[in-house]
Amino acid sequence: MTACVDRMIRPPKQTRRRCSVAPRRQERAFMFFEAHLQLLQAAADANRTRSAWTGYTSVTPPDSRQAEAFVGAYDGATLNLSAPTQSCVTADEVSPYTGKALNVTYSAPSAEEALEGAAQAAAALRDAGVEQRVGVCLEALHRIHHRGQEFAAITSHTTGQSLNMACSGSGTNALDRGLEAVAMAWAAMNRVPGQVTWRQTFGKSDVTLRKRFRPRPLGTALVVACASFPAWNAYPAILANLATGNPVLVKPHPRSVLATAVAVSIIRDVLAEAGLPSDAVQLVVDTVDEPIAARLATDPATRIVDFTGSQAFGTWLERNVENALVFTETAGVNTVILDSVRDLSATMRTLAGGLSLFSGQMCTTPQNIYIPDAGVLTDDGPVSRDDVVAALCAAIDDLAGAPRRAAAVCGALQSEATRQALEALADRADADGTLVRRPAAYAHPEYPQARAVTPLLVRVDPRRGDQLPAGEQFGPVAFVIDCADRDSAVEHATDSVRRHGAISSYLYCTDDAAVDAIADAYADAGASLSANLVSSMPMQYAAAYSDYHVTGLNPAGNATLTDESFVAGRFRMVQDRRQVEG
Amino acid sequence: MTACVDRMIRPPKQTRRRCSVAPRRQERAFMFFEAHLQLLQAAADANRTRSAWTGYTSVTPPDSRQAEAFVGAYDGATLNLSAPTQSCVTADEVSPYTGKALNVTYSAPSAEEALEGAAQAAAALRDAGVEQRVGVCLEALHRIHHRGQEFAAITSHTTGQSLNMACSGSGTNALDRGLEAVAMAWAAMNRVPGQVTWRQTFGKSDVTLRKRFRPRPLGTALVVACASFPAWNAYPAILANLATGNPVLVKPHPRSVLATAVAVSIIRDVLAEAGLPSDAVQLVVDTVDEPIAARLATDPATRIVDFTGSQAFGTWLERNVENALVFTETAGVNTVILDSVRDLSATMRTLAGGLSLFSGQMCTTPQNIYIPDAGVLTDDGPVSRDDVVAALCAAIDDLAGAPRRAAAVCGALQSEATRQALEALADRADADGTLVRRPAAYAHPEYPQARAVTPLLVRVDPRRGDQLPAGEQFGPVAFVIDCADRDSAVEHATDSVRRHGAISSYLYCTDDAAVDAIADAYADAGASLSANLVSSMPMQYAAAYSDYHVTGLNPAGNATLTDESFVAGRFRMVQDRRQVEG
Repeated sequence: MTACVDRMIRPPKQTRRRCSVAPRRQERAFMFFEAHLQLLQAAADANRTRSAWTGYTSVTPPDSRQAEAFVGAYDGATLNLSAPTQSCVTADEVSPYTGKALNVTYSAPSAEEALEGAAQAAAALRDAGVEQRVGVCLEALHRIHHRGQEFAAITSHTTGQSLNMACSGSGTNALDRGLEAVAMAWAAMNRVPGQVTWRQTFGKSDVTLRKRFRPRPLGTALVVACASFPAWNAYPAILANLATGNPVLVKPHPRSVLATAVAVSIIRDVLAEAGLPSDAVQLVVDTVDEPIAARLATDPATRIVDFTGSQAFGTWLERNVENALVFTETAGVNTVILDSVRDLSATMRTLAGGLSLFSGQMCTTPQNIYIPDAGVLTDDGPVSRDDVVAALCAAIDDLAGAPRRAAAVCGALQSEATRQALEALADRADADGTLVRRPAAYAHPEYPQARAVTPLLVRVDPRRGDQLPAGEQFGPVAFVIDCADRDSAVEHATDSVRRHGAISSYLYCTDDAAVDAIADAYADAGASLSANLVSSMPMQYAAAYSDYHVTGLNPAGNATLTDESFVAGRFRMVQDRRQVEG
Repeated sequence: MTACVDRMIRPPKQTRRRCSVAPRRQERAFMFFEAHLQLLQAAADANRTRSAWTGYTSVTPPDSRQAEAFVGAYDGATLNLSAPTQSCVTADEVSPYTGKALNVTYSAPSAEEALEGAAQAAAALRDAGVEQRVGVCLEALHRIHHRGQEFAAITSHTTGQSLNMACSGSGTNALDRGLEAVAMAWAAMNRVPGQVTWRQTFGKSDVTLRKRFRPRPLGTALVVACASFPAWNAYPAILANLATGNPVLVKPHPRSVLATAVAVSIIRDVLAEAGLPSDAVQLVVDTVDEPIAARLATDPATRIVDFTGSQAFGTWLERNVENALVFTETAGVNTVILDSVRDLSATMRTLAGGLSLFSGQMCTTPQNIYIPDAGVLTDDGPVSRDDVVAALCAAIDDLAGAPRRAAAVCGALQSEATRQALEALADRADADGTLVRRPAAYAHPEYPQARAVTPLLVRVDPRRGDQLPAGEQFGPVAFVIDCADRDSAVEHATDSVRRHGAISSYLYCTDDAAVDAIADAYADAGASLSANLVSSMPMQYAAAYSDYHVTGLNPAGNATLTDESFVAGRFRMVQDRRQVEG
């Protein structure tokens, strides 16, 4: 980290304003709330009905030239998104497509500076009240959506997501998850009446009390985002904290900062326009060599921690953070049981898409695929395991062989380390005879130098003593597991859920009663189950307002997007009561 | 602990049944739910409106002879209220009134036995579903209420509560707090639909998913109750756990077991009648010399801990339990600011009652009383601090001098240690010239040997260097604190809240705008405030369904009776979704 006082350059978009005559700031905050109230109510309704709904129109992906221009606008910029500090850091952000460094510098407050800044902002944020704070959240989401193409471009060139996925998964879907959490927090706070007149008889006399109930924040919150999918988990945590009045420190992954930084910058602008301290949300940037998350998480001033990332650090946080609520979403081993299907080709296309989507870098990517000895039953009779595996390979090859589609589906690997680990795994599988498909590069139509890759397939038989990794193997790798029958697949898979966790689990089975029983077995292991997904919907698609993400009942994390436990502890009620004439 | 296999005596009330022709067990469970559904709905409504309501008719206190008979029925009994074990313990329970040992023996499972018993019961409890489990909770509350006099007798002769208080505070009020928690948990689970058909268009095709959402328990729960007020906090925790499907280990204080044991015995009976394993609730009895709570709380199998007791152990649990949700209600320093009053005599009577109620052994008892240099303003002008202190002493003396009333209000000290600490404190105050009133015994009309005592008053001036205890001083002791003015009182008192915590805070001030400002100051310190309570309602009365007990925002504990955060994390949602024809 270096001193950065004389490098205060901000790209023009960071400071733009929309009105020439500004209303008074407090009024502005209520205007935000009122402007988006209908959306908020619809989101709260959707949370209750859990039916299909979205709050945001889809974003048309920019073309690659436009995307580079969006990212290039930040070349050489310095973003100051925290309380004042003398330190800054030029993050090690390199596009997985172009291989070029983004060259963006961020103010990098120390833990003390960031915590002090949060403490300074706390009272004003708390006193702003629910509607003002919720208004800020909704307006920020609105502006992020408005700049959807820019966000998609930055997301793509930091995470490796394709521009399509960056517009949906990290775009509107992430905004929906953010809105879902805001609506959940708003509904929870609204379920308590603001005041009540209470009357009761004691002995012979009536007592009348006038009571007020006010939600109050818990304290400073830390949100730690991951490198490959920073928005989807961070928006709900940041906004649930803000809505409930807790100042937030946002700590992105040191190699994937910019998209989060721009989101934080927007929220800070909206806070300022609402007459609230910008430092109610701060960006805290660290480096791989000098990480700051553990220091911040264990500070007594930190009262809430949201973490997305490795199971090792997530578990460490759950065990070592003494003074804060800890919400984690980490990783697990997602299983697929192939028992019986209506349409094998369509199933294999869906599964190939699921393995390829964002090069397997999603926490919902399938990893372990069970096929019984008898093969997979179809309407035309059983198909042998060898033939099923061959069909899966063919479906992956088909996808990989169509460069535009492959680019849209697979994107690129965020990190070189993932590619190296993948190659090493392929070599080991080759050596022990379990390799089915090498993780070959596909030909990216625009960026031949992209870290482009298609799935590695390994085939193992645990009965023969073949080993499986003890946890998530990050990136595009799947293990086809030979097993005796459906029951043994369920037993092995649910045991895996209990040991390693799972975020998504998949089943193909045409017997609805059997699906029920297997759903029970997964539920008993603390996992949700998706059955018979064969369509243009990606199998790992999780819909905000409807699908719960992470159960909190297995080692893949303790935080659910978004159940009531995700918001309930972030605020508490203070009450006053005074005796009045009856 | 001794082997107790050949001492299986149960008093007759433990096993009674009410129907001669028993319906099938599953049906029975639904009958429980349906029988009490109206009550449940009314409780859920009251939770929402927070207006005055009770689910239980008041219980007429037994007379002292009847009470002794209720307790005597257990003399020599052995209660087996856990999974099978070879160990038992005759608890060190001695009546604070008669000085006689209760002589009741309890099965005392080891941590391993109790945890294994809970694990064995888990699946059946989980699979019973919400309505069956809630039905069990409601029926258990109903039966406890039905045996209200017996509970009051036992509570009185173990805790020292008067029979009046044991009928209300540990009787109907505790039942109301239990029902409040059950209704809160039921409402939270009910807010998620059981199933939904979800339709969305992807590209050109419609996708229809049939989704189910099921609440699932977190795992084994531990509930640790305190010696002096075991029901009020334990019922909500036990029943919130049961309603959400978590098997419960109930660990009472080793010197105050029997009331909790009988409640557990009733719940176990109802579970069995509902076709559920009795071991879904077990009593775990330990001894002062070999405590078991820390061992149980830190076992990886324990996923929820509810604790009522000392701040030291509560904080230890919050910091050292890695694998479980921890809910604590401990203690704080409750403050009273005397600024201005309408009726000084009535205020002093109320405050004298508050200090005397259950001999100051409630977590809501006032401890630090601030009086400004200018005295207390009344309609007839200011009354000097000396005169206010004299009036408070006179009000206490009045109460103490009326034995029947004193007995009904004060009850007795649960523990000899409390009396000794009180005497030592009085001696020190006498030595340093701060003693205002000695904690003299009052003449109990029925039990001259009772551990009967009236409040100790000490007067200090921190400006003179007088010291205050750094936390709760358990028992009937109050410190009158000389302070410059109202503002300095508020500053000192809210600083005390931040350092030591507070469960209830009191203010007497006739300026409503000032009450607002002071309520804000307490709220900022994380405390609730009661203003101008002058009536036949005891000042520390906290009404279930309306008053939140413990904010969770100061060191007095993190668990609120009953906000949504008290129930939200005890269950999580598992989901399954399957693709169907649109």
